[in-house]
Amino acid sequence: MSKQLNIGLFGFGVVGKGLYDVLHHTPAFQSSIKKICIKNVHKPRAIAAENFTSHAAVLLEDEGINVIVELIDDADAAFEIVKKALQNGKAVVSANKKMIAEHFEELFKLQQKHKVPFLYEASCCASMPIIRNLEEYYDNDLLNSFRGIINGSTNFILTKIFKEQLDFDKALLLAQQAGFAESNPQLDVGGFDAADKLSILLAHSFGVIAKKEQFIFNGIENIALQDAMVAKGRGWKIKLVASAQKLKDGKLAAFVLPRFVTEGDDLFNVENEFNGLITESSFADKHFFKGKGAGAFPTASAVLSDISALRYDYKYEYKKIFHQTDTVLTNDFYLKVFVSVDDFTKIKRTEFEWVEEWHNEFKHSWLIGTIHAAKLAADDWWKQPGISLIACPDAIVEDVDYRKISQRSLELAGVV
Amino acid sequence: MSKQLNIGLFGFGVVGKGLYDVLHHTPAFQSSIKKICIKNVHKPRAIAAENFTSHAAVLLEDEGINVIVELIDDADAAFEIVKKALQNGKAVVSANKKMIAEHFEELFKLQQKHKVPFLYEASCCASMPIIRNLEEYYDNDLLNSFRGIINGSTNFILTKIFKEQLDFDKALLLAQQAGFAESNPQLDVGGFDAADKLSILLAHSFGVIAKKEQFIFNGIENIALQDAMVAKGRGWKIKLVASAQKLKDGKLAAFVLPRFVTEGDDLFNVENEFNGLITESSFADKHFFKGKGAGAFPTASAVLSDISALRYDYKYEYKKIFHQTDTVLTNDFYLKVFVSVDDFTKIKRTEFEWVEEWHNEFKHSWLIGTIHAAKLAADDWWKQPGISLIACPDAIVEDVDYRKISQRSLELAGVV
Repeated sequence: MSKQLNIGLFGFGVVGKGLYDVLHHTPAFQSSIKKICIKNVHKPRAIAAENFTSHAAVLLEDEGINVIVELIDDADAAFEIVKKALQNGKAVVSANKKMIAEHFEELFKLQQKHKVPFLYEASCCASMPIIRNLEEYYDNDLLNSFRGIINGSTNFILTKIFKEQLDFDKALLLAQQAGFAESNPQLDVGGFDAADKLSILLAHSFGVIAKKEQFIFNGIENIALQDAMVAKGRGWKIKLVASAQKLKDGKLAAFVLPRFVTEGDDLFNVENEFNGLITESSFADKHFFKGKGAGAFPTASAVLSDISALRYDYKYEYKKIFHQTDTVLTNDFYLKVFVSVDDFTKIKRTEFEWVEEWHNEFKHSWLIGTIHAAKLAADDWWKQPGISLIACPDAIVEDVDYRKISQRSLELAGVV
Repeated sequence: MSKQLNIGLFGFGVVGKGLYDVLHHTPAFQSSIKKICIKNVHKPRAIAAENFTSHAAVLLEDEGINVIVELIDDADAAFEIVKKALQNGKAVVSANKKMIAEHFEELFKLQQKHKVPFLYEASCCASMPIIRNLEEYYDNDLLNSFRGIINGSTNFILTKIFKEQLDFDKALLLAQQAGFAESNPQLDVGGFDAADKLSILLAHSFGVIAKKEQFIFNGIENIALQDAMVAKGRGWKIKLVASAQKLKDGKLAAFVLPRFVTEGDDLFNVENEFNGLITESSFADKHFFKGKGAGAFPTASAVLSDISALRYDYKYEYKKIFHQTDTVLTNDFYLKVFVSVDDFTKIKRTEFEWVEEWHNEFKHSWLIGTIHAAKLAADDWWKQPGISLIACPDAIVEDVDYRKISQRSLELAGVV
């Protein structure tokens, strides 16, 4: 029923090392690591030198290796490895979200062409079996939306800002010390990592293949302690939330933005390096998943589960991609957002359809208003230093009443 | 890649009807209901009479039907249907937890013998994909424990008792009006339903096939408003929790009992008809799943997902049963419990190893102490009317310090 796996492993960092230890102490896995490819063979290692090579071909061309596990940092090098492995008919397990998101279509086609499984549960929300649940459980015509905290290090940082009133830089330092930040923290705090994950999740949830450049995303670098105080005053928290929602016209709205989360919301209690995802479907209604979204062990556990699944010839069917060909991504929707600035002239108030709150104080002005997503996509004034844009709890405004966009509103906004 | 399913449906209640509607409005499912077997063919139905029959054989012997969906109430009749269907080489989907739990071993063997899939995601936690996650995602040697709220109607009742200070009978009535209680409410409030679900989950999580009679279980009938007040006073709630935990000796402790839940616990926010389950594994650490555990639509959604999975020849591999043959269920562990009574003479205080709190007031006495699980399993004094036993947040006491079982303790307990 299950088969023996002979693994070629790329990378021997904390995750790779942890994986090696578990596999070699758990015969039940029927899997063993035959060879490990690393950059520097001269670096002293915990296990015998004959396990290592610095030549990728030694693994990729070895007929005796039927599974490649790719756990290296470099997305470009990783892609070359995965591509070659699939072409050589080897099953592949990877955790490299950047690589997968940027080459999704090509990787998808390679799997179809060479009929080999490519699993990457660890690429989204580390330990949480979120890709498999989206892929297997929700029939797309039943799934209406999902939103979640899918980056552990930014959630850790925001938790510290809220709980310990730390400013951003101090909180980031703590995240790095705890080992929750990417080697390049910009990928996390700039929202790039969450956006890559969202693009992977869009394919498995709604069958939409889209790179992060096709939807709005931002990180948390500009979140000021003052913004946290505004949130606290209303009993809210600020989380970096990835959202995807089917609009009334059947099109799909998707974005990654800092977002106010209210106390009743399941995401409210997702703290530190934990991730959380809420799905909404017409029959199952709300589902909530929570688990560790960062760290070596949670990541290793997802890689292990993929390896275990390969023993039973599991592969992603990409059901949504094949059956939901009519779902298209759009920026044609309105967002209700909070924008705060150190200098109020930085806010492009005329961009807003409707302004419902306007607050002005020395070195801290903010408004709450409705703006068209296409305007945010077209211009990045709202990403500049000193400006933080935070989506409101009820972020997507489906029916804007244009009668509201009145003289009164513009006066409120101080435009006229 | 996917195949056409011709379904024979048993039962046309709310779930069956909902299922029929969805399948016939969603061509993507490539599934259609060929014939429906019901008790009374003369009862007026929403769809044409030629769809119905009262003869099971018409479905079970039809070569053109490759899937049987069983959604009837009667567990014994359901078992005969499922058994015959599997023997005739038809895939089966069922939501009947009582039937599945009581005949698990035979159903397991029938699947192996006739090599046909039998899926029953809807039998546990309705809409939540919990069986599939336990089955597919967690490698058993990594899974240490799970605990969860797996009965929607009792959770609904307990929520009402806490939020609206209703007594048990009034709350039960509300649950029945809302359609969250089984046709026989005793199955819910007596803990039988949760116990059957636990026995199914034990097989898919730890590979242990055990009927509910093999572990301790109880319901919520004896929970008094006074108990809720004690809990509230400590910032706790009372939930009916199913637990399974690997002990230090490698054996498995399992039970279903009312349990105090603290505010930091993810189960604390699982209210009304929602279910929630927390898994703990050595690498993935904690995972939390939450979703609707009762109601026609959530149940139908799980049945739909099973049908959808059959199109891709999905079947349970029962990995844990095959690989974890050494895991055995035990009652050889200590439980820390709260016991309250209307009359203090009802408490068998000498049964306790250690009593750490003792409270006496007119018509309401209670103690908190440690008792051996085998003693609870052997005698049901603690299930009698007027007595409620509630497990403490830290229910399982692994290392009891026998020096503590002192004269002092017995004096506290008023034994000497």
